[in-house]
Amino acid sequence: MVTRSALELSVLDRIRPQADERTHIHAIAGRLINSVNQSGSATGMIVGSVARDTWIRGDRDLDIFMLFPPDLPREALEAEGLALARRVVESAGGTSREKYAEHPYINAIIDGLDVDIVPCYAVHDAAAIQSAVDRTPFHTRYIKDRIRNLIDDVLLLKQFAKSGGIYGSDQMTEGFSGYLCELLVDHYGGFIPLISAAQDWWPGVLIDSSDHRTKTFHEPLVVVDPVDPRRNVSASVSLTRMCEFIELCRGYLERPGVEFFSLPVPASGSGESVAMLIEKRKTTLYTITFQTPPYIEEIVVPQLRKSLDAISALLTRHEFVVNRAAYCMHADRCILLFELVTGSLPPVTRHFGPPLWARENARQFSEKYIRGMEEGRIFSGPYIENGIYVVELARRYCNAGDLLISPSLLDVGLGRHVKAALSGSLTVKSGLDCLDEDFTDFIRSFLEKASPLTQIRQLENRTSV
Amino acid sequence: MVTRSALELSVLDRIRPQADERTHIHAIAGRLINSVNQSGSATGMIVGSVARDTWIRGDRDLDIFMLFPPDLPREALEAEGLALARRVVESAGGTSREKYAEHPYINAIIDGLDVDIVPCYAVHDAAAIQSAVDRTPFHTRYIKDRIRNLIDDVLLLKQFAKSGGIYGSDQMTEGFSGYLCELLVDHYGGFIPLISAAQDWWPGVLIDSSDHRTKTFHEPLVVVDPVDPRRNVSASVSLTRMCEFIELCRGYLERPGVEFFSLPVPASGSGESVAMLIEKRKTTLYTITFQTPPYIEEIVVPQLRKSLDAISALLTRHEFVVNRAAYCMHADRCILLFELVTGSLPPVTRHFGPPLWARENARQFSEKYIRGMEEGRIFSGPYIENGIYVVELARRYCNAGDLLISPSLLDVGLGRHVKAALSGSLTVKSGLDCLDEDFTDFIRSFLEKASPLTQIRQLENRTSV
Repeated sequence: MVTRSALELSVLDRIRPQADERTHIHAIAGRLINSVNQSGSATGMIVGSVARDTWIRGDRDLDIFMLFPPDLPREALEAEGLALARRVVESAGGTSREKYAEHPYINAIIDGLDVDIVPCYAVHDAAAIQSAVDRTPFHTRYIKDRIRNLIDDVLLLKQFAKSGGIYGSDQMTEGFSGYLCELLVDHYGGFIPLISAAQDWWPGVLIDSSDHRTKTFHEPLVVVDPVDPRRNVSASVSLTRMCEFIELCRGYLERPGVEFFSLPVPASGSGESVAMLIEKRKTTLYTITFQTPPYIEEIVVPQLRKSLDAISALLTRHEFVVNRAAYCMHADRCILLFELVTGSLPPVTRHFGPPLWARENARQFSEKYIRGMEEGRIFSGPYIENGIYVVELARRYCNAGDLLISPSLLDVGLGRHVKAALSGSLTVKSGLDCLDEDFTDFIRSFLEKASPLTQIRQLENRTSV
Repeated sequence: MVTRSALELSVLDRIRPQADERTHIHAIAGRLINSVNQSGSATGMIVGSVARDTWIRGDRDLDIFMLFPPDLPREALEAEGLALARRVVESAGGTSREKYAEHPYINAIIDGLDVDIVPCYAVHDAAAIQSAVDRTPFHTRYIKDRIRNLIDDVLLLKQFAKSGGIYGSDQMTEGFSGYLCELLVDHYGGFIPLISAAQDWWPGVLIDSSDHRTKTFHEPLVVVDPVDPRRNVSASVSLTRMCEFIELCRGYLERPGVEFFSLPVPASGSGESVAMLIEKRKTTLYTITFQTPPYIEEIVVPQLRKSLDAISALLTRHEFVVNRAAYCMHADRCILLFELVTGSLPPVTRHFGPPLWARENARQFSEKYIRGMEEGRIFSGPYIENGIYVVELARRYCNAGDLLISPSLLDVGLGRHVKAALSGSLTVKSGLDCLDEDFTDFIRSFLEKASPLTQIRQLENRTSV
């Protein structure tokens, strides 16, 4: 018998689905399943948190899968699947729109409920899947019974993760999926046993309940999928999210508090207060803003990340010291933000040549610089330092802004769609000009960056004063 | 039979000792040797370039060694040696002063000639020496006959090295001694064969004519002493001087010119012209000046070098980027010069903590910063980056000048006498205030730094225009 703390019991009271909510959802789900089954072409199945009774109150999305025979050709599956889903939604009195993940599916609003209706193949074995969605029914079948007695634990973990900003396996979050939360609770046997164990996780920790993995994984957190020995369920979890979870677990066990389950969204503030933060730091901010490429977040966000790294490396190559950088994607515009220790550098820069004993390279270097072909650019040298030729040249970009608007920006590894967007049009701003209504909150949280546990402790300090 | 170029022949005409000069020196040397021998307590011997006829015209210093029996106690050798040397000088009508290397000796002016008279032990074998000077007579005996037919080659090499600023094994120069020049010419069989071979030297090149070394040497250039298998004759040659020599050899063979034997001393210029150089670079200079410690160059210069490195490292630790640094020792004052990319930094700096999985360290870090004990210093964080705790703190020194006048300066590895001098009194200046009459030429040559070959080629370009 599990003993819950008063805190956890009160959290559960707040987050457990209510009876009428459960009745309402299952009624809709039942109608949709019937409707799918009656079509004769596919079998309906509830998956996701509704199937397992593990949704947080008010936060339910209904996922209905339609399992088609595996010999149906892919195009037919997509066409028939979408058509059937539309009919099912229509008969339930809802409104449909088409969406895309690996394959198209239907998202609908039915009686105020957000429902995804997804066609997939009814394969006989998880190893025989034709697309990632085919694996989902196996997850539901596997986990449903195993966590029947751990539902409260799953709810606590999900709320804990959501509150800490680490819930969600999307590219923006890089955190913990619902299925991962369920597997972890199952593996450790409850919320408290899990977070006790997680305190001592390290990058590379391996959890393989079924002891059946058939490959080596290189992600920081490895939880082998019980239904597929080749898959890491936590592949999407970044090292930072993993460490933030570890830190939250330690913090909670050391000094539990309601904030671990209800961290408020940081209050948004005025542009002036952000301007004060910028001026206090005396660093130089640069932003690049541009139109969001017309692709989904899962495609664009990895490219933003890649672009951020590539442009940071470009700045570093030109000797601008990047303190930190971050990106943000909105529906209409994206922003890349760089904080530099200084935005301007002196006109002289050292250029390192070959060692003297690499004779042919040394000859070419000395030809180029000693013979004066580059005389106009030379401040001093060539001279020799630690056996290496050095020459001091006029710096190409004394100002980081000039570098960021130069054609060099498009030569670094930006990712295809970001490159296309930047080639079209971009805006580079610096200092207080970076303050942009749409991104004020993003810039504030960048400047006030703090781990989830830090935010919780700060909140406690403020409250206790 | 060696064929000399017209250039080399004309250089030799200029640098070979003249007949009357040789007669004059040998007459004085003869008198001094007689005088030593007549004392009955020691045997006189001419050593150095006069003994080998390898001095450059006008540049002769006479070295007379007095060889005492090896069973004489050290104190008696010093006392008797100095007394005898004084008597010998007096009888020759010269004026004496005492000087110190490893041991005291007498420096005299006799008939306008600079003469060192040095007591040493007449050991039977170079392996049995009691002090470094005891080795010198062995050098003379070894090399004298071997280079009898290579004297012009030695003269050319010495002039070549002097002109390039790499002649002299003292701490300030870190270059080639006269004996090393003689050994190299002997080993390769002449000036041109030597410089042809030196083009392809690399750090660690080993020259062991007698094939008898008994240890491994770690200096960049290794020339094993034929009279002592445990000694590297070129131990004093720095990697930079070695590479400058390599570069000069390549440059001379590629395009010979008289400048390789007569590079003029760079013209000194006004303070204003140096100020213009400083302003053009837009970097920030800092100087530390202080009284020269009351010790010889061979003691002080290595400490200046050590101090320069230690203070550069201090600046780097505090995130000031040092472009270059240099030192200079004058009789009364020393200067340490640092060129920084920027002399001031923003007030925020990132402080890196332990990785999250080093649990006890992580706990201590989070105690310190998350619990707010350091709250006043925190700009943002702690947050997690690549699995590591990071916190952004108020920078201790935003201005490099404040760091250089702080007590931290005396905590770095300065060398004993430099530390004592800096503890007494030091002056820190920045920017144009660094211009100091005594060190204007030093600062100019720092700003215009160029290898010897670069200087020669610049001179050619200027002449040919």
